Amino acid sequence: MKEVLAIVRMDMMNKTKAALTEAGISSMTAREVLGRGKGLVDLSLLKGAELGYEEAISQLGQTNRLIPKRLLTMVVPDKMVDRIVKTIIKVNKTGKAGDGKIFILPATDAIRVRTGESGDSALDEI
Amino acid sequence: MKEVLAIVRMDMMNKTKAALTEAGISSMTAREVLGRGKGLVDLSLLKGAELGYEEAISQLGQTNRLIPKRLLTMVVPDKMVDRIVKTIIKVNKTGKAGDGKIFILPATDAIRVRTGESGDSALDEI
Amino acid sequence: MKEVLAIVRMDMMNKTKAALTEAGISSMTAREVLGRGKGLVDLSLLKGAELGYEEAISQLGQTNRLIPKRLLTMVVPDKMVDRIVKTIIKVNKTGKAGDGKIFILPATDAIRVRTGESGDSALDEI
Repeated sequence: MKEVLAIVRMDMMNKTKAALTEAGISSMTAREVLGRGKGLVDLSLLKGAELGYEEAISQLGQTNRLIPKRLLTMVVPDKMVDRIVKTIIKVNKTGKAGDGKIFILPATDAIRVRTGESGDSALDEI
Repeated sequence: MKEVLAIVRMDMMNKTKAALTEAGISSMTAREVLGRGKGLVDLSLLKGAELGYEEAISQLGQTNRLIPKRLLTMVVPDKMVDRIVKTIIKVNKTGKAGDGKIFILPATDAIRVRTGESGDSALDEI
Repeated sequence: MKEVLAIVRMDMMNKTKAALTEAGISSMTAREVLGRGKGLVDLSLLKGAELGYEEAISQLGQTNRLIPKRLLTMVVPDKMVDRIVKTIIKVNKTGKAGDGKIFILPATDAIRVRTGESGDSALDEI
C-alpha cells in the first residue's frame, strides 16, 4: 500500500482528477499548497544565498517565492502506483518548469470508518 | 512510530479532537481538505468514465465532486495506534457513506524543536 | 529518501524558508494548519478529560484550542535530513513552548513530471 502525493498546477487539478478517476482511482483528497520547485526560483539568488551573501538571502526570505499549487493525495494498492504515475505525467507534462512532482510514500494500513475494514479492501477501487 | 491520518466530516472535527484528547493524544494538526470517497460520486458517471464515454469523463472533471472534509494528523508511538483507530471509529461511525477513512504511515523519527529530543520521547503524551 | 514535515510558528515561515534555501533545499511546500502541542493546552483540562470529567471534555471540544501554524514539507535524499533538522532547530528554537516539531517519514520514490526522472535525481538540489 502506498500514499501518492502529486503537486500539480492549480489549473490542471480538474483534468488530473478526471484522468485519475478514469484510471480507477475513486478516492482522493485535494488541497491548496504553496509550492516551489527548482525552476520557480531565481537561480542567481539561490547561488548568492548558497555563497552566503546576506542580500540574496534576505530577498529569498522576504519576497513571495512560493506559488499556489494543488496537492492531490491518494492511498492505493501497490499494483496501482505505476498506472497513477503514468496518468499524472500524461496529463501534466508540458515540458516546462513547474509541471510538478510526484512523491511515493509507504503506507502501513487503511481503515474504512463505516465498516471497520482494513487493508487493501478499505481502499476504494471501481 | 506512525503517522495517523484521519479524514472525517467537518462537523465531527471537534468531537473527534475531544475524544482523541481523552484517549491521550495531546498533539495533532487539522486542516481542511477536499475529499472524495467511493460513496460520494455518481457511480454511473464513474462507470461511464471507466468505459471511456467522453461525456461522463467531462462531467467528472467539470463538476465540483470533491467536498470539504477535515484531515486530522498525528504522529504517535506504535502502541497507541490501535487506541486511536478505535477512538476515531467510535466517534465517527454512523454507518452512512462519508464516515471517513484512516490511513497509517510509518514514521522514522520525530524531533521536538525546543529541546532537540528525538524518538518517542519527542511525542506528546499525557 | 525521506519526507520531512516541520510545524513552525506562522511568523517563522519566511526565516525558515530562507535558511533551508541557504542549506541547499530548493523545493518545498507550505500550508497553514491548525496545530496543538502539549504546551498549548490547559493541562488541568487535559487531566480532567483523562479522568473522565464531562465538563473538562466538553471544554476541550468546544473551545478553540488548535492554533494556526505553518507546515513545511519537503522530500529529500537521506544524506540531507540531518542538515535540514539542524537548520530548522537553529532558526526556530526559542526555548518556549510552541517552537514546533519535525517529523521524518520514509519515502519510496519521487518523480519529476516534466522529465519522468525518478529517485534522488528527481529531487531538487542546488
